[in-house]
Amino acid sequence: MRQIQICEVGPRDGLQNAKHLMPTEAKKRWISALAAAGLDEIEVGSFVPPKLIPAMADTAEVVKHALSIPGLKVVALAPNVKGFERALEAGAHKVTFPVSASRKHSESNVRMTPEQMVEQVRQCVALRGPRSSGGPEIEGAISTAFGCTLQGAVPEDEVVRLAVMLVEAGVDGVPLADTVGYANPAQVRRLFRKVRDAIGDKLEGAHFHNTRGLGLANALAAYEEGVRAFDSSMGGLGGCPFAPGASGNVITEDLIFMFESMGIATGIDFNKLLAARAALVEGLPEEPVYGHTPLAGLPKNFRQAA
Amino acid sequence: MRQIQICEVGPRDGLQNAKHLMPTEAKKRWISALAAAGLDEIEVGSFVPPKLIPAMADTAEVVKHALSIPGLKVVALAPNVKGFERALEAGAHKVTFPVSASRKHSESNVRMTPEQMVEQVRQCVALRGPRSSGGPEIEGAISTAFGCTLQGAVPEDEVVRLAVMLVEAGVDGVPLADTVGYANPAQVRRLFRKVRDAIGDKLEGAHFHNTRGLGLANALAAYEEGVRAFDSSMGGLGGCPFAPGASGNVITEDLIFMFESMGIATGIDFNKLLAARAALVEGLPEEPVYGHTPLAGLPKNFRQAA
Repeated sequence: MRQIQICEVGPRDGLQNAKHLMPTEAKKRWISALAAAGLDEIEVGSFVPPKLIPAMADTAEVVKHALSIPGLKVVALAPNVKGFERALEAGAHKVTFPVSASRKHSESNVRMTPEQMVEQVRQCVALRGPRSSGGPEIEGAISTAFGCTLQGAVPEDEVVRLAVMLVEAGVDGVPLADTVGYANPAQVRRLFRKVRDAIGDKLEGAHFHNTRGLGLANALAAYEEGVRAFDSSMGGLGGCPFAPGASGNVITEDLIFMFESMGIATGIDFNKLLAARAALVEGLPEEPVYGHTPLAGLPKNFRQAA
Repeated sequence: MRQIQICEVGPRDGLQNAKHLMPTEAKKRWISALAAAGLDEIEVGSFVPPKLIPAMADTAEVVKHALSIPGLKVVALAPNVKGFERALEAGAHKVTFPVSASRKHSESNVRMTPEQMVEQVRQCVALRGPRSSGGPEIEGAISTAFGCTLQGAVPEDEVVRLAVMLVEAGVDGVPLADTVGYANPAQVRRLFRKVRDAIGDKLEGAHFHNTRGLGLANALAAYEEGVRAFDSSMGGLGGCPFAPGASGNVITEDLIFMFESMGIATGIDFNKLLAARAALVEGLPEEPVYGHTPLAGLPKNFRQAA
C-alpha cells in the first residue's frame, strides 16, 4: 500500500548535473537496486542531443534495461518532438516535457518561448494518438514555476495560464517544478491551490530542489495541499549544497524518512534503499552524495508505515 | 516588527557539542555580531561544571559581555540549583533548565529522574522569588520530547505530565526540544497541540535538531500549530550532518530564509547575519559549518519581509 508516489529522478536530473559520468552498466545496476527498494517509478534519462548533455547519451539503452524490470514505470525526459520520437522508439512508459514558466529560462534552456514549447507538446500528443492506443503517458512539467535565477520572480498567473494551455494541448498531467530552489512553503500552498483550481486533477505532483535547504518543508506543504506525487533524487545528486549555486533535488532518503515517520506509506524499504545508495556510490565514486538519514541512521525502534 | 522570535543557541548548544574550543574573545565577537544582525535573544552559555564541559567554562565572562549589548536578552542554561546560583550571580536575563522526558536520558544527562529535576527547578523558582522582583525568567525545557536514542519512543502523555509539573513548579515557560532529531512534522503538530491543551500559553517554543534533515519541516509544522518562538544554531553548529549520530541544531540561516521568504518577519538582517557567520568561522576555523542559503545566496530580487 502506497499513500504517496515517489518518482526517483536521480538517473536523469541527478546524473545530468553531476560533474562525473556514470558508466552505462553502473546506471543499470543502480536503477535495478532502486526498483528493488520499491521505487516503482524512475526517470531514467533524457532524450536531449548527446552533444549537449553527454551524460544522457545512453538513454535509449538505459530505457531498454529499465523496461526489463517488472512493475517499473519508466520515465524519460524529452525537450521537443525529436526527443519524443526517440522516447517513443525506445518505449518509455511516460515522457516528461520541461516547459518553463520563465521566458528567460525557456529561451536559454530550450531556445523556445513557453508558447512554442507548448506547441511542441501538442504535436507530440498528436503523434502519440489517444492514450487508449497504448502510447506513453505525456506530462507537461512546469519548470521555474516558483522563480528563476535569470528573471527573479515568476508571476503565478503565468504558471496557471501555462498549466491550462498544457491541459488544452492534451497532456495527461502537469507537475510543478522548483527548478532552481526558490520555492517557500507559503508559495507552494498558494500556487498548487491556484493551479488545482484551474486544472483539477490534471495537477500531478511536485518537483523540488533543495538549493536553500527548504526541499522537505516544501514537500510537506505540498502534501498538506493534497499533492501525493513527488520527484526526488537519491543522495541529493546533481547539486552540491556546499557550493554556490547548489541545485540538488530534494533527497530521496530524507523525503522517504519524513513521510514514513509521519505514518505515510511510501512503499519503499529503507534498508534496500541504502543498498541502492551503495550502488550509486559505487557507480559514481567521485561525486559527493548527501542525505542526513542515511548517515544518522533510523531512530531506535523505528518502524516504517504499514 | 518581528512576527516570530528566534533564539540563537549556537554559543551554547553549538559550541558545547563542537569538536574544537572557541576562545572567549572570539565568542564575544561572535555574540556581538549575532546581536548586530538582529538576533535579540541568545543562549550564550551553560553553567555546568567546567570539568564536565570545558567549552562552557567561561560562561560567566561571556554572560557579562552579552549583558553589555543593549536590547539583548541573555539566556544561559543551568542543570541544577548550583548552576542556577551561578546564573543568578552572573545576571542572566533568562535561565533554561533541560528536563528530559526520557527517564534514561535524564539519568545519563543530569543523573536525576525527571521528577528530581522538576524539584530542582521548583527550588530555583523559590530562590528567585516572584517574577516581579526582577530575577531572571525561568524556563523548563522538555528535552527528548520527541524520542530518545537510549529508550526509543517517549510517551506523549509523559511529556504532557512533565509540562504540567513544570508549570506547577512555577516556570515562566515550557519549550519542547527534539534533542536527538527524532521528531517528524505530524508528531510535532500533535504534541504541541496536546501540551498547549494542558498548559495554554505557558507553552513557549520549539527547539529542533536537524539530525535527519527534518529541522525546517518540523519548524514549519510547529509554526502552523501557532508556535512563534524557535531555537536555532548558526551554521548548524554542534553536529556534523555527514557523520553518524549527527545532531546539529536547525540552521539559523536557513530557518530565517524560510520564514522571511514566506513573508514572516524575523527582525534579522540577512546580510549582517552573513557577517556573524564570518565571525563564527573566524573564531572556530577548524569546525565545519553548514547551511544551504549562505552558500546558494538569496534568490534574485529577494526582499525580506516588512
